[in-house]
Amino acid sequence: MDVFAKPLEALIREFMKMPSVGPKSAQRMAFYFMNQPFSEIEKMCRALKDLENIRSCSLCFNFSEDNLCPVCSDPSRDSGLICVVSDFRDLAAIERSGNYKGVYHVLGGLISPMDGIGPEELTIRPLLDRAAKASEIILATNPTVNGETTALFILRQLRMNSEVKVTRIAYGIPVGANLEYADGITISRAIEGRRNI
Amino acid sequence: MDVFAKPLEALIREFMKMPSVGPKSAQRMAFYFMNQPFSEIEKMCRALKDLENIRSCSLCFNFSEDNLCPVCSDPSRDSGLICVVSDFRDLAAIERSGNYKGVYHVLGGLISPMDGIGPEELTIRPLLDRAAKASEIILATNPTVNGETTALFILRQLRMNSEVKVTRIAYGIPVGANLEYADGITISRAIEGRRNI
Repeated sequence: MDVFAKPLEALIREFMKMPSVGPKSAQRMAFYFMNQPFSEIEKMCRALKDLENIRSCSLCFNFSEDNLCPVCSDPSRDSGLICVVSDFRDLAAIERSGNYKGVYHVLGGLISPMDGIGPEELTIRPLLDRAAKASEIILATNPTVNGETTALFILRQLRMNSEVKVTRIAYGIPVGANLEYADGITISRAIEGRRNI
Repeated sequence: MDVFAKPLEALIREFMKMPSVGPKSAQRMAFYFMNQPFSEIEKMCRALKDLENIRSCSLCFNFSEDNLCPVCSDPSRDSGLICVVSDFRDLAAIERSGNYKGVYHVLGGLISPMDGIGPEELTIRPLLDRAAKASEIILATNPTVNGETTALFILRQLRMNSEVKVTRIAYGIPVGANLEYADGITISRAIEGRRNI
């Protein structure tokens, strides 16, 4: 159905490669650029190509332009409190929540025997090195099978090497959610994790 | 909240300029490109920059790479049947429906006194020229105030110059919709437009 001019078709196909972009969104995006001055297209291309300048933070493996990422180089953050996350998306989610004032450690994935990802593929070794100077390590991997496996593995490794305090993010009912629709395991965990008020 | 590396922040801001892309989608898109080989970024940039090669079809004003757009240059389409649409998006919607075998005329907007858009801003003059060789002209502007105004204006202009058959797309209940929730004007139009079965 090539009714569009070829360059437009080509651009729509490129947009459709992006996650959660269907044909209609891709068309809308292509039409948007059709109506923009060429300088906007150049800005977008420059921004895309500048991704080349991104590397890993040498401390926490967050994406960074410099040797240390913006979080690790922020003196107002508590560098002794390390939150361990699977990837950059989870780091972004915690940052969006706005209350966390410690630093991070990005694992680069989760242990997943099915996908052939073992502990060596992740940044667990550097985390163990960082643990020596940490006051607390929060294991914030997802409450999924792979997330739990990874958290447990890290916990054991840490226990072998140090006395650092290790915590796990709380399981429970999401704020604003309805008990009626929560699954049984979540409810059990929420009751186990009950706190005095 | 600049926790992301600067180039990533910059790219997210560029994505957020696109229509119906919020902060979360923009982040997802930026992360996607972070995980792509550089060749994918180059493909996207080439596709964006190739938009420069697009011009208007000299006949119907559809976007085109060549003098004639893919629709006008398709010999299997009925060049005597001209469907008049406001813009390229509406042309795309009709093409998606898959049954239309005529050609188009893209007005480049609708008459809108409020926005200072008069008939001279649209491609109405070239449409009148095309009408001489047409068997039927379908006015497929939206059933809105500006769409109706534009359709009526074109009808009058056509009547002054030619005897060509002029039709208007049907008003009615959308397929799959519920009469209960349809507005009164639409129901009245659907009844007026009833057909023998």
